[in-house]
Amino acid sequence: MAANRPVTLRDVARLAGVSVATASKALNGQPQVRAETRARVVLAAEQLAFSPNTFAQSLITQRSGTVGLLTSDLEGRFSIPILMGAEDAFGSGQTSVFLCDARGDTIREKHHLRALLTRRVDGLIVVGARPDTRASLGRDLPVPVVYAYAPSDDPADLSLVTDNVGGGRLAVDHLIRCGRRRIAHITGDPGYSAAQDRARGALDRLDSAGLELAGGEVWFGMWSEAWGRGATRMLLDRCPDVDAVFAGSDEIARGVLDVLHEERIAVPSRVAVIGFDNWNILAANARPPLTTVDLNLEQLGRTAAQRLSAAMDGHPASGTETLPVRLITRDSTAPLS
Amino acid sequence: MAANRPVTLRDVARLAGVSVATASKALNGQPQVRAETRARVVLAAEQLAFSPNTFAQSLITQRSGTVGLLTSDLEGRFSIPILMGAEDAFGSGQTSVFLCDARGDTIREKHHLRALLTRRVDGLIVVGARPDTRASLGRDLPVPVVYAYAPSDDPADLSLVTDNVGGGRLAVDHLIRCGRRRIAHITGDPGYSAAQDRARGALDRLDSAGLELAGGEVWFGMWSEAWGRGATRMLLDRCPDVDAVFAGSDEIARGVLDVLHEERIAVPSRVAVIGFDNWNILAANARPPLTTVDLNLEQLGRTAAQRLSAAMDGHPASGTETLPVRLITRDSTAPLS
Repeated sequence: MAANRPVTLRDVARLAGVSVATASKALNGQPQVRAETRARVVLAAEQLAFSPNTFAQSLITQRSGTVGLLTSDLEGRFSIPILMGAEDAFGSGQTSVFLCDARGDTIREKHHLRALLTRRVDGLIVVGARPDTRASLGRDLPVPVVYAYAPSDDPADLSLVTDNVGGGRLAVDHLIRCGRRRIAHITGDPGYSAAQDRARGALDRLDSAGLELAGGEVWFGMWSEAWGRGATRMLLDRCPDVDAVFAGSDEIARGVLDVLHEERIAVPSRVAVIGFDNWNILAANARPPLTTVDLNLEQLGRTAAQRLSAAMDGHPASGTETLPVRLITRDSTAPLS
Repeated sequence: MAANRPVTLRDVARLAGVSVATASKALNGQPQVRAETRARVVLAAEQLAFSPNTFAQSLITQRSGTVGLLTSDLEGRFSIPILMGAEDAFGSGQTSVFLCDARGDTIREKHHLRALLTRRVDGLIVVGARPDTRASLGRDLPVPVVYAYAPSDDPADLSLVTDNVGGGRLAVDHLIRCGRRRIAHITGDPGYSAAQDRARGALDRLDSAGLELAGGEVWFGMWSEAWGRGATRMLLDRCPDVDAVFAGSDEIARGVLDVLHEERIAVPSRVAVIGFDNWNILAANARPPLTTVDLNLEQLGRTAAQRLSAAMDGHPASGTETLPVRLITRDSTAPLS
């Protein structure tokens, strides 16, 4: 061996009489290697003075084929589709996404973060439980991070968010194209940016059509069926000729449908109803099945994986990227006949 | 140093001038250690002839503080509460549970399994998407495995399942205690063991009270609101004096409530309704809120963690352990007045 050529893993493997893959596993402390084999490889590495620095370096820079997904979404509603999209984009069989649930608890989040970094994940996707801004994990992490659904409060981070303003616009646009003119908006907790953004998009589109909101105001309240029912009763009292309701969530839309049904008001012929989220269990099983805005969460996951891959390859991005949502039409909306 | 005392990590740390924790991290290839520090520790280990075997052994036997949860539950409905229960039992801040979603695909499952084992998890919890028997991961895994929700087909494995028979018995028992005598059972796909087991428990309890099923048979069908609605209409035709419906899932129960409401049949005064699953979004928001059977999934997760810890400590168990479910009473059931 030439004296000035650096010792490679191949040299170590040859001396130990094992494959390069086995030598790598042995030196990386992976469990599939028998103890005697590992000892032989470590001895060979010592004899050849295989540099501990190189060894340490390879431990740090090699791709592990795992990505951590840190979430606080207690129901898995948002994280599971994002996880699926990310795995699809990384390539099935290439990368495993490990999901850890922090339950909105920063101490638990720190613990999971440490566990994931210790297991040497290649990158992190951080998924919020609601689309409001969250605290950044900081700038000194050893792997790239992409924030999905909830944006980071640090503009140096890369955040991917869903277009709630565009979703509100899309919903009202569809109702206007169905010939509706007296459109009401019943939505959830005004403390959520999602509620404010969806309402803003709805008002924008109404305004551009020269229309006003039926009932005169946005009906902010709670993200629940019960609020959907209560608000619809008040709405029907105040504005009995309403011809469409845009609900800020599928749960609220279910409550709206329930009261319209109870009042024998035909959907969609007299009142069209549109939801938000495309939460299948609620939207597809509604009577009639619910037209709704889909957040495209699998696409969000795929994009997060692409941005993370780019960052791992030395091309990090920053700022907030807004991804489009899409309309799913079912039977609760139709043109006025 | 006495010649015959084995060299310990403490000796290595002292010679390298670092803490024992840092020495351990350096030798275990963890990324938080600076390259120079790692080199110094590796050099000290070589000088003291700190045994590569011991080193390799410690890599294999040490606890990593991580457990893998391998699931195929696309909605996260079952896995997230099981994950939470397991983390609580391991002790918050002690163990991180990494969830991987195999989507019911055995190739993807193998890939995730490899990824988790390579990351040296201490054990595995395997969660099925439905409570039917699933294929064992085999007997030659390097870490203990507990099957939760869906039992393994190998009796040498340890499986923890929920008591669906007991749940059916509990539901009908509650209805009988409410004074109901004409009890019908509308449930899902008869190809699911959950549907069969819940029906069996219901029939057992009716039998012991000398009662027959209202409508004369179990109404097997689909796990959907639409089936709940359709079956309820047929039931009311055939058996208009029914005074209680036990639904095999909360989705079905929502369909039952819907038709009773439409027919202006008062719940619970004329007909009591009980669901199964305690899927909060459906059960708590129903009108009236739904009495239902809770699968106690967090408890299932806690027990899985305890059994896994015992196995890691050298006390493995095998066979199938059936965990109790519990009744959650809300407003859809009440004594006959």
